[in-house]
Amino acid sequence: MMQYEKDGNAIYAESFATIRREADLSRFDADTAQVVVRMIHACGQVDLAADVAHTPGLVTAAREALNAGAPILTDANMVASGVTRARLPKDNEVLCALRDPAVPALAKELGTTRSAAALELWRDKLEGSVVAIGNAPTALFHLLEMIAAGAPKPAAIIGIPVGFVGAVESKVALAESNLGLDWIVVHGRRGGSAITAAALNALATEQEIMR
Amino acid sequence: MMQYEKDGNAIYAESFATIRREADLSRFDADTAQVVVRMIHACGQVDLAADVAHTPGLVTAAREALNAGAPILTDANMVASGVTRARLPKDNEVLCALRDPAVPALAKELGTTRSAAALELWRDKLEGSVVAIGNAPTALFHLLEMIAAGAPKPAAIIGIPVGFVGAVESKVALAESNLGLDWIVVHGRRGGSAITAAALNALATEQEIMR
Repeated sequence: MMQYEKDGNAIYAESFATIRREADLSRFDADTAQVVVRMIHACGQVDLAADVAHTPGLVTAAREALNAGAPILTDANMVASGVTRARLPKDNEVLCALRDPAVPALAKELGTTRSAAALELWRDKLEGSVVAIGNAPTALFHLLEMIAAGAPKPAAIIGIPVGFVGAVESKVALAESNLGLDWIVVHGRRGGSAITAAALNALATEQEIMR
Repeated sequence: MMQYEKDGNAIYAESFATIRREADLSRFDADTAQVVVRMIHACGQVDLAADVAHTPGLVTAAREALNAGAPILTDANMVASGVTRARLPKDNEVLCALRDPAVPALAKELGTTRSAAALELWRDKLEGSVVAIGNAPTALFHLLEMIAAGAPKPAAIIGIPVGFVGAVESKVALAESNLGLDWIVVHGRRGGSAITAAALNALATEQEIMR
């Protein structure tokens, strides 16, 4: 007979307490720390905290946007799938355009990946949105190019693409962009849809545990 | 003007080459190495290889099951969302029962989490299936309890739950289960839906790059 904790709320509470005991969150204000705790929860690694960078206004900007009903725009269907709809303050739209039938031709035309091309389909929703890039470095690069060329600005950008080609560089490009953006990144190769969805879920509501 | 690789196939090829150059894959046969490479690709960390353990027959068992049309059963909607349908050899069913309306009452009745209770809804599909636990340690514990109590055996179990309460222990329990199962785990707290979906996508087809 295996003995293990079976109470969902107790598991959440003990998990978050363990993270707060082990992770070095001293660099973060209380609101940001709550977001970082949830990101750590999604990957199981407390050292993630050291790689997080963000603008001072990120949490406030994202929360105000979501409370005002802003859409969440993401490059990855897994991120969209990972957003807990019950946490969203305004039943906000969660949009990934990757499977839109227009995307393959658009990618060919623009000479880029489908993940990057899919962002063009968001153009009219960018203003004041919360953008979450949780997979493709090319999508984050393309977003920065669109904004630098005059596209409307999102209220907040969660930049956590993952991998071995462009991930490091795309997150540095966001952090050094000087476009007047609010953003949070996980520097390095580490990232991905689970950490990104966790950041969104933390930004969506201050309530840590919801069952 | 930012310079970065925009060709999807080139990005995949360079990523996999980097992983094979940096990761210690010497413990793995060629088929398993291909799976581990893809798992590393999903998290951006080559040291993941050191935490991977598996039975010798895992890859063959999973591939034979999928080629025979076995369903993929998972505890997490994000895992289901991350399975690339075009890679599946038999348009295999991908099932996560977490949002089934029966689950909350079942969880209460069984005194466990919804993630664990949802597995009860798979019972008649377990025989010869490919089970992927990519989120909840309680789901992996519950699966082992069901099988130990006589439930049909899956052909292969991908055990990569994540987190701070039970994740370590549930993966050790699978590895030490002696139930005649084929399995692969990522020992430790690390895991999650992205790594789990990547393992499934690698097992679904030997083709590394598909566009």
